[in-house]
Amino acid sequence: MTGRFSYRLIARDGGARLGEISTPRGAIRTPAFMPVGTAATVKAMYPEQVRSLGADIVLGNTYHLMLRPGAERVAALGGLHRFMNWPHPILTDSGGFQVMSLAKLRKLDENGVTFQSHIDGARHVLTPERSMEIQRLLGSDIQMQFDECVRLPCSKDEAERAMRLSLRWAERSRKAFGDQPGRACFGIVQGGAEPALRIESARVLADMDFHGLAVGGLAVGEPQALMLAMIETVMPHLPEDKPHYLMGVGSPDDLIESIARGIDMFDCVMPTRAGRHGLAYTRWGKINLRNARNAEDSRPLDPHSSCPAARDYSRAYLHHLVRCQEILGMMLLTWVNLAYYQELMAGARAAIAEGRFADYRRQVKADWERSGEPFTP
Amino acid sequence: MTGRFSYRLIARDGGARLGEISTPRGAIRTPAFMPVGTAATVKAMYPEQVRSLGADIVLGNTYHLMLRPGAERVAALGGLHRFMNWPHPILTDSGGFQVMSLAKLRKLDENGVTFQSHIDGARHVLTPERSMEIQRLLGSDIQMQFDECVRLPCSKDEAERAMRLSLRWAERSRKAFGDQPGRACFGIVQGGAEPALRIESARVLADMDFHGLAVGGLAVGEPQALMLAMIETVMPHLPEDKPHYLMGVGSPDDLIESIARGIDMFDCVMPTRAGRHGLAYTRWGKINLRNARNAEDSRPLDPHSSCPAARDYSRAYLHHLVRCQEILGMMLLTWVNLAYYQELMAGARAAIAEGRFADYRRQVKADWERSGEPFTP
Repeated sequence: MTGRFSYRLIARDGGARLGEISTPRGAIRTPAFMPVGTAATVKAMYPEQVRSLGADIVLGNTYHLMLRPGAERVAALGGLHRFMNWPHPILTDSGGFQVMSLAKLRKLDENGVTFQSHIDGARHVLTPERSMEIQRLLGSDIQMQFDECVRLPCSKDEAERAMRLSLRWAERSRKAFGDQPGRACFGIVQGGAEPALRIESARVLADMDFHGLAVGGLAVGEPQALMLAMIETVMPHLPEDKPHYLMGVGSPDDLIESIARGIDMFDCVMPTRAGRHGLAYTRWGKINLRNARNAEDSRPLDPHSSCPAARDYSRAYLHHLVRCQEILGMMLLTWVNLAYYQELMAGARAAIAEGRFADYRRQVKADWERSGEPFTP
Repeated sequence: MTGRFSYRLIARDGGARLGEISTPRGAIRTPAFMPVGTAATVKAMYPEQVRSLGADIVLGNTYHLMLRPGAERVAALGGLHRFMNWPHPILTDSGGFQVMSLAKLRKLDENGVTFQSHIDGARHVLTPERSMEIQRLLGSDIQMQFDECVRLPCSKDEAERAMRLSLRWAERSRKAFGDQPGRACFGIVQGGAEPALRIESARVLADMDFHGLAVGGLAVGEPQALMLAMIETVMPHLPEDKPHYLMGVGSPDDLIESIARGIDMFDCVMPTRAGRHGLAYTRWGKINLRNARNAEDSRPLDPHSSCPAARDYSRAYLHHLVRCQEILGMMLLTWVNLAYYQELMAGARAAIAEGRFADYRRQVKADWERSGEPFTP
């Protein structure tokens, strides 16, 4: 593998951007949705399947991987790409978010976070330096700065404290990342729901030598309108020539609205987690397969889908599998959902390229209103 | 679909038989291993995958399907083949075995069995007539007579009572099956561990108009030697021109030894269940992926396997997935195991065709002794 990490803005359509990230492991077409592969697996999917849906990149979680199987072990086994049989680009988060949401007995100070594993209670320390070291050991193509993410709502003081700490950690993270040809390091804008803090965070990070910038600390309990307002606030201060990544987002509607405001990259457990809990995302809206109304419904989820799982199995069968907690039910619905998310991204890219993103946005939203009932001509 | 159900004996090699069953839904090459699709799914496998491994037929469980989703519902949805997206042959058992092993508060009399569902406690009745009706509603290609299967060891009196009841139920089952062009009804030899009872059961059934005969009530707790002795006892009394099916068996060694004694068809949950519990069956024997010795083993299970799951993932990765209880671990190991079982059957068929089954049997057994360690040249 040779080559540099770079981003190219191909087209604009209103606020929406069409672009391409180049990496030695392959291109990432943006807007891009990154399936989440928490513990080195996109749950209930073969890696070849994930790829064939059109995913150019997946996300791995530093917190989970440092606990099991451990970053040094993954490195000894040839890195995360080889470990999980995914030769394409991988982005890793910094572990900060999961430490806050999953770990026990956290203690945060200037240096970093001390915590107990949620698996076996073992004590661990994460600092900006250790987070970057783990991400380097994993062989991640896009490594995220270590930050502190606060839940919303939170006080202005708390948001400011966490934002300023995250800025200091951004400097330490960037320094620890050093120079890794072909790999990238992204900074993360924090600042809670405070426009002034968000703007300051974005401006400071834009002046650092990051390869891309993320908006963090959103989709953490606040209404969608507030999230979109924060994106609008931040966007004018993000460098145009670097990718913009909205972390941990979201629903199909969140994605479309964020793309309209200039976001290029997303990750979210929603399609995979929903698939394991009987919920399907389709062109015609969400369909809850647990619902008894599906028990005798011989129609597939979407007869015109390119995804076999949406096309070749009846809703009655999917309902049966979900009811019996069969693994195949999780496999088929995860497949349906990731296929739909990738299809939504591909559609957005094509629409931006042709200058008709506003129409696309209107159309997909109108289709969702059909509540799982495609028109029968 | 047109055509009849028929069996053709193609070659003999010692006691082993090479054959082919013709059905309107396709041919079944024998010796055949039938993956078990209990609740209308071979657990953790896409149906296309099962097919591509070389499985010509899968098994469905009457007991599970009558409880969920119900035979009448499956029929209304177009039958079991369409329901589970498996257009190839399906064999269904009669429900008798599962009633005895899973249901609560059983009451058995001449008419049949009354029991409570293990799922919701609802009361159900299975009789030979209802069992055959359910199998017909499912659209099963090979339907099994309703029988009573006793656990071993059991008294001679108990074995005789159950065997004679099963013979009376065989007559009622065959009559209830009637004439279903292209579909088959199999009788089941019972008689516990009593040679005289087994022979009598086989002789009486051989004179009835069944399309194939099964040996039931084995692999229910007895040593392998006793099982093989019973097969040897029964075999001379089974019609040569009909398929011989050994129910619920078994390990790779059970399969090879039973093929050597004239068995043509098998079903067993062993490869699928083991795959969900971290155990891999390979050419080089069983490998327990839970074992910590695999944690840093970068080798695949079998570098020369035609199965991607055995070839493209390290033992360390499989160990990690099993340890984290990841669905992908179950998916990959089930795939490995079913691939190996089908490969074992394909190898047996080729060996019988070429008159070298004794060598094949010796070779596969020698390979299993390597305990997961393929020779590295």
